[in-house]
Amino acid sequence: MTESVHADREERLLSWVQASFADSPDPRLKVVMLSLTSHLHGFLRDVRLTEAEWEAGIAFLTEAGRVTTAVRQEFVLLSDVLGASMQTVTINAQLRAGATEATVRGPFFVTGSPFVALGGDISGGAAGRPCWVEGTVTDTDGTPVPGARLEVWESDETGRYDVQYDDERVTGRAHLFSDPEGGYRFWGVTPSPYPIPDDGPVGRMLEAVGRSPMRAAHLHFMVTAEGYRRLVTHIFARGGEYLRTDAVFGVREGLIKEFVEHDGAEPTPDGRDLGGRKWASVRFDIVLEPAPDDA
Amino acid sequence: MTESVHADREERLLSWVQASFADSPDPRLKVVMLSLTSHLHGFLRDVRLTEAEWEAGIAFLTEAGRVTTAVRQEFVLLSDVLGASMQTVTINAQLRAGATEATVRGPFFVTGSPFVALGGDISGGAAGRPCWVEGTVTDTDGTPVPGARLEVWESDETGRYDVQYDDERVTGRAHLFSDPEGGYRFWGVTPSPYPIPDDGPVGRMLEAVGRSPMRAAHLHFMVTAEGYRRLVTHIFARGGEYLRTDAVFGVREGLIKEFVEHDGAEPTPDGRDLGGRKWASVRFDIVLEPAPDDA
Repeated sequence: MTESVHADREERLLSWVQASFADSPDPRLKVVMLSLTSHLHGFLRDVRLTEAEWEAGIAFLTEAGRVTTAVRQEFVLLSDVLGASMQTVTINAQLRAGATEATVRGPFFVTGSPFVALGGDISGGAAGRPCWVEGTVTDTDGTPVPGARLEVWESDETGRYDVQYDDERVTGRAHLFSDPEGGYRFWGVTPSPYPIPDDGPVGRMLEAVGRSPMRAAHLHFMVTAEGYRRLVTHIFARGGEYLRTDAVFGVREGLIKEFVEHDGAEPTPDGRDLGGRKWASVRFDIVLEPAPDDA
Repeated sequence: MTESVHADREERLLSWVQASFADSPDPRLKVVMLSLTSHLHGFLRDVRLTEAEWEAGIAFLTEAGRVTTAVRQEFVLLSDVLGASMQTVTINAQLRAGATEATVRGPFFVTGSPFVALGGDISGGAAGRPCWVEGTVTDTDGTPVPGARLEVWESDETGRYDVQYDDERVTGRAHLFSDPEGGYRFWGVTPSPYPIPDDGPVGRMLEAVGRSPMRAAHLHFMVTAEGYRRLVTHIFARGGEYLRTDAVFGVREGLIKEFVEHDGAEPTPDGRDLGGRKWASVRFDIVLEPAPDDA
């Protein structure tokens, strides 16, 4: 059998598949399905997928479905480690000059976080070295954005978010609002690197290809304000491990910030008494873009 | 923001993702992952996937996982309706001149089917018009293949396989062996068109794009014999509905056979008394390829 006869049969099949979407009543869905099937068949043909590999692929997806629960999302994890989540963020970025860059949301955001006053502590008792976080929220012209809602969330020093514990704890997450000058400040814990959940098929895939499941240490922000585009991002610690090998490709140069270490003897910005413990501080000035409708 | 800056950022991200597979200890897996991520990112970029569409994709896969059980395989169905299953069959076809073509296995094959003697009835009481099926098993030189194992399976006249009923029935499936001249023959029921299981996310996707879930009427065969390549195929009824719109793209011209209708008064090939019922007959001569090792 010559290669060209194979290619011809394979192309005819793809044409038949593509023709099946001809009558789609939803023009956008038609565009999506034509591109999806074109790339899917392109992949199968490029690698000359074997029937055993097809079976392995079905088994992978089946297992991913089996381990997915309300608090464990293996398909999001799969999208994350293949860079698809970050590519979607990148495609949808507006990239107005000076605006803070977005990155992946990740699976650990929870609605209904506790309110914390400016200068308060979001850790809720999460273990870790205290970290003072402060900055401003402005627009791309430098005008302060007062009353912006900042949702912040982070893991504890063992690398686990509250929802990964079996108890009902709510720690390392809160929301607060910027002051009339756009300023914000709070105490949290210094972020630590951690592995993405790696006891499922995604973790086994990473192991099979020799990749680390570790994420660079980071602190999540979701910032919303009337008239501005919602910003979902993190900040990363300069000089930290895994910045170049972040398992979900979430690191952007502009999001790497200096986490300054302070001796226990050094006074804290708000005079809080830490009992002589070491602490850290970081500044993150957030610049919001106009909402798409106003852009 | 210019398009080229977007393209540049998107390509840099893909390069980072691809570089993550550089140290894969399994060279074949590396090839597969490089092509997979290249096509996946190509799809996202071609359609400029929105964040809402990404969420919809995750929800689709999550729901597919939720409905998948030991007897309901939504991921196989998804692969089938996107033509990926049939493309995998096509890629792996040897296509030796004169050999019978393969098609998709589908989700209803079950190991451990009952043995039926040549000329026996595989229907096991399945409802439907009796159908006499006969033919030979030969190699591509026309030499008979005696003792070939033929697994055959089919739906009843309502379009359901035995495993789709809640009881423990075993109907419409059996295995038999070709005789010393390579001949085989059995009674079954005349195949009927049926919808693939369409009450899950795959069914809703088909509806959203205006596609029918119907499969053309068919009868499954899996033929194995020492020294030959296993053949998984079906035969379809010439002139039947849905041949051009088969939901899983399984139809090949060479697999469309004449199902001849017979009046109740016409004597049956083996003298079986059908009590005056109408019956059908079909001939399917099977040509096996040498096993890959012997090719």
